[in-house]
Amino acid sequence: MAIVLGPNQYGKAETRVVRVYRDDGRHELRDLNVSTVLRGDFADAHTHGDQVNVLPTDSQKNTCFAYAKEKGVGEIEDYALDLARHFVDDIRSVTTARVEVEEYPWERIRVGGQPHPHAFARASSEVRTAAATVIGRHGRGTWYRIVSGLDGLVVMKSTGSEFHGFLKDRYTTLAETDDRILATSLTARWRYQIHRAKPKSWDEAHSQIRQILLERFAGVHSLALQQTLWEMGKAVLAARDDVAEIRLSAPNRHHFLADLAPFGLDNPGEVFFAADRPYGLIQATVQRDDAEDAGPAWDSAAAFA
Amino acid sequence: MAIVLGPNQYGKAETRVVRVYRDDGRHELRDLNVSTVLRGDFADAHTHGDQVNVLPTDSQKNTCFAYAKEKGVGEIEDYALDLARHFVDDIRSVTTARVEVEEYPWERIRVGGQPHPHAFARASSEVRTAAATVIGRHGRGTWYRIVSGLDGLVVMKSTGSEFHGFLKDRYTTLAETDDRILATSLTARWRYQIHRAKPKSWDEAHSQIRQILLERFAGVHSLALQQTLWEMGKAVLAARDDVAEIRLSAPNRHHFLADLAPFGLDNPGEVFFAADRPYGLIQATVQRDDAEDAGPAWDSAAAFA
Amino acid sequence: MAIVLGPNQYGKAETRVVRVYRDDGRHELRDLNVSTVLRGDFADAHTHGDQVNVLPTDSQKNTCFAYAKEKGVGEIEDYALDLARHFVDDIRSVTTARVEVEEYPWERIRVGGQPHPHAFARASSEVRTAAATVIGRHGRGTWYRIVSGLDGLVVMKSTGSEFHGFLKDRYTTLAETDDRILATSLTARWRYQIHRAKPKSWDEAHSQIRQILLERFAGVHSLALQQTLWEMGKAVLAARDDVAEIRLSAPNRHHFLADLAPFGLDNPGEVFFAADRPYGLIQATVQRDDAEDAGPAWDSAAAFA
Amino acid sequence: MAIVLGPNQYGKAETRVVRVYRDDGRHELRDLNVSTVLRGDFADAHTHGDQVNVLPTDSQKNTCFAYAKEKGVGEIEDYALDLARHFVDDIRSVTTARVEVEEYPWERIRVGGQPHPHAFARASSEVRTAAATVIGRHGRGTWYRIVSGLDGLVVMKSTGSEFHGFLKDRYTTLAETDDRILATSLTARWRYQIHRAKPKSWDEAHSQIRQILLERFAGVHSLALQQTLWEMGKAVLAARDDVAEIRLSAPNRHHFLADLAPFGLDNPGEVFFAADRPYGLIQATVQRDDAEDAGPAWDSAAAFA
Repeated sequence: MAIVLGPNQYGKAETRVVRVYRDDGRHELRDLNVSTVLRGDFADAHTHGDQVNVLPTDSQKNTCFAYAKEKGVGEIEDYALDLARHFVDDIRSVTTARVEVEEYPWERIRVGGQPHPHAFARASSEVRTAAATVIGRHGRGTWYRIVSGLDGLVVMKSTGSEFHGFLKDRYTTLAETDDRILATSLTARWRYQIHRAKPKSWDEAHSQIRQILLERFAGVHSLALQQTLWEMGKAVLAARDDVAEIRLSAPNRHHFLADLAPFGLDNPGEVFFAADRPYGLIQATVQRDDAEDAGPAWDSAAAFA
Repeated sequence: MAIVLGPNQYGKAETRVVRVYRDDGRHELRDLNVSTVLRGDFADAHTHGDQVNVLPTDSQKNTCFAYAKEKGVGEIEDYALDLARHFVDDIRSVTTARVEVEEYPWERIRVGGQPHPHAFARASSEVRTAAATVIGRHGRGTWYRIVSGLDGLVVMKSTGSEFHGFLKDRYTTLAETDDRILATSLTARWRYQIHRAKPKSWDEAHSQIRQILLERFAGVHSLALQQTLWEMGKAVLAARDDVAEIRLSAPNRHHFLADLAPFGLDNPGEVFFAADRPYGLIQATVQRDDAEDAGPAWDSAAAFA
Repeated sequence: MAIVLGPNQYGKAETRVVRVYRDDGRHELRDLNVSTVLRGDFADAHTHGDQVNVLPTDSQKNTCFAYAKEKGVGEIEDYALDLARHFVDDIRSVTTARVEVEEYPWERIRVGGQPHPHAFARASSEVRTAAATVIGRHGRGTWYRIVSGLDGLVVMKSTGSEFHGFLKDRYTTLAETDDRILATSLTARWRYQIHRAKPKSWDEAHSQIRQILLERFAGVHSLALQQTLWEMGKAVLAARDDVAEIRLSAPNRHHFLADLAPFGLDNPGEVFFAADRPYGLIQATVQRDDAEDAGPAWDSAAAFA
Repeated sequence: MAIVLGPNQYGKAETRVVRVYRDDGRHELRDLNVSTVLRGDFADAHTHGDQVNVLPTDSQKNTCFAYAKEKGVGEIEDYALDLARHFVDDIRSVTTARVEVEEYPWERIRVGGQPHPHAFARASSEVRTAAATVIGRHGRGTWYRIVSGLDGLVVMKSTGSEFHGFLKDRYTTLAETDDRILATSLTARWRYQIHRAKPKSWDEAHSQIRQILLERFAGVHSLALQQTLWEMGKAVLAARDDVAEIRLSAPNRHHFLADLAPFGLDNPGEVFFAADRPYGLIQATVQRDDAEDAGPAWDSAAAFA
């Protein structure tokens, strides 16, 4: 028996890069939170404190800023992929790089009805995400996968949701209902196909997928949050050949009917208490049965421990 | 010398009331966070543990739900005022009531381009606020004030902001600049006139004031955040006789130019690091010199200690 | 009628200063979060964008770091007072300065039972606070007040708390109880006397006051949270002539008895659900009837709007 | 090609269970945050909205409370294991259950130097964790694994940390140092052996492992955070045969030396700026090369997407 170093990785987390394009009077801006994760030949740093193979996280941060100038920040999937490829191609000790990007949305302030050329308001608290994973083979980062997504898409239906016919055990007290509020703050992550049907535009793909998720949430008459998630995911895959799989994580933000009977008031689905904790948490994957292999595409820093 | 009870108050904080209007197929919803604050004859509860004058905070919570049905939730200023008046009018020990409401914005999900009748998405993380303060005189809650506002209006200008000519002391190292990013997450609170020029519609007033704040943030060529705040507040008061005063609190969300020179790159206002802490905090009041008296209109629960 | 500039202030918020004393092998550390608030002759910055009287917040930040070296960081009340005096004495446009300090507690890691000379663990999430307010008179900052306190002292009693005999109205459904859990996360702020009975040691005063608060929370058989707060505050003032007044703000962290009857189980005060929102919020001041005047000692940046 | 349901799970997250033991005058309390995750035969709920196999998350919540009475809450590993076994044994559609528990520490308030029998203060913001995963085989939950851990162990060394000899690329500007502050907020998760060397007491194991982590953090003269993590993990496995592997995740909470030279002050490791973002994030596993298989022991709800 021996004690050995197992899976390990390191990087610079949450570098806040803001890129302004000001080539003409009408500015554009991209507001990013960038995290790098490197895997490779770092055993000596652990076991002997030898940094010869260790690119400082400070250098990784510098690279995020420099690439925002050198390569620019167009679609975040490309920016993440450029950075991940660089670490694999140019740093000899790195065998796998994952670059995770969050993008915060802004919209132009309207002045007198016209969009302003350089003044912006934060559009929502929803976050667009992209993660590029690159593996070096034969000294070059040729294998890669892209997982895109969104965090904090907060949605609510005030009707069109039922929950009944469920399994009952000794500890079940929940009443069945054929009309309830359904609300969640959706986290979605989808993995693109790379070789078979890569999207022409990451932005267009993101926009369409987001719209499908919204429309299916609205349109499905829900018998359970599970069913809604499945229908949302299925619709995304049906519409886009370039999506290999999608993972959905949905906290059930419970809205309980307020009991107004003690005050002589009825409450036919009108007044609700929005609860914090506990909450149901429903998680589902919808995938193609012939999807490209994922490799380590899903191995995020957050999932490490 | 004696040890005495000084200012004191109590209430139920953060009751999460969701009101659905479903009278026809097209639902409306109001999503609120309600806090009540009562002042009055509560000395015996402190000094002798005697609750005879103390309405439980649980009852206050119940009242928030019941009023959402009995009185309904239209404009949050009216809902807050109804509740505050009730506590002063109907609870004999209460001499002053303040009801604070936060409202979270939702917008209809569009399906096939059409707004859905009962499916919604959270519009932004910005919060609309209203606080009604009612004082009982001669046994009736006739005196009142309304302070409305917004939290988390996050705005950024990528140019049109300078900062120079400032006072320099022994500890000053900041370089002067004639072009920088100006960004903040604005908190605004404005107090309406009640007797001289009360708004016809709280919703309309809120909407116009918000738009003025946005337009002035965008339009003012800024020599300092102080100047921008003054111009924003001044424009609100100039446009609306019904606003007695406005208070603005603006953290300066610093965006520092990334130093790309070590990598042989120039950076003419293109790549920035968005910093977290520390941050400048600029706070200003703009008011009428003949405004109605405020009384305790500004005495929030958050400001107590 | 005119639109005028009202109360205004600015400063650098949340500068994270860590001071290490390493004069011998046994290090000491002070971990601070420092905010400066300046008031004075800043009207031109607002109305004309003229910064000639405006010391940049960046310079204020630099001063926080420089003073940690020049003056050192002993007791945080002294550090705050030194900084506030400096701004009033040395910056001609400043008439009032308030410096707010939060201190995070650390304790030595014990190795083999012995406290380590330079390795520390964060002791708790409780925060010690101090705010020094200095007013310039005749060109010198001679008037001052000190408000000290603590945030996040989380305490719970599993018995020894009742709540009954309360006022009942139409909306009251709460059952009376003679045994419940009482829990809160206490915020306390106390103002010291400066001229009559200034403490010899701020650290000793803080330590004793904290212990009194804890002991009274534990020792008082509570008929209401109001009563517990009053007894806590009264005991502090009784023990220390140098405290002019104390403000206590206590969210009632409700613990509801879980209903186990449907499962054939009794629950005599054994299993509870800890709720998040809403919560009662009880706030009280205990003061001397002959206390020194407070002036603007309580006017914090957080209370501005 | 077909679109199919992939990995999915659901449960009740963050049920806040507080258990009081009051059999004699000296109370004990356990303060828990419990999450359940069920996997099994739930395809019909997704694809057809059929809940016949779905135990409501509300029932799972009830079970958490009921078990706190029926089985009690001793060591959280046992409580989690009892719950997970129940779901696999008693709910026919469940093939795997994972129950995750966070425990918040409390200590007795001391009154007059004596520990109080029923008054407590929150000891720290550190959280103890346990996750029990049970798989049903032949209709019984016989296979299980336990992963325990801690969150938020915040530690700092004011010296005894170097960082030099690292790999330098085009984007490297970091200076080498032989004396810096090393600080982190440690997340640790360790998996126990079940068949070969199960701990006699989960509490004793947790306590010893925590102490080893602290002592090694303090004792290792660090050439990199990687080295410190390795030494911490190695010491845990060396001391305890019952630990199969340990995962450590450590944000590098950077403390930058304040530049006081512009003010004519030297700064030999005395005054630091504690930065928020970005931060290095170092993650490592230390394991036995002959450890028991982990199965799905690490598949947490948080890691799903």
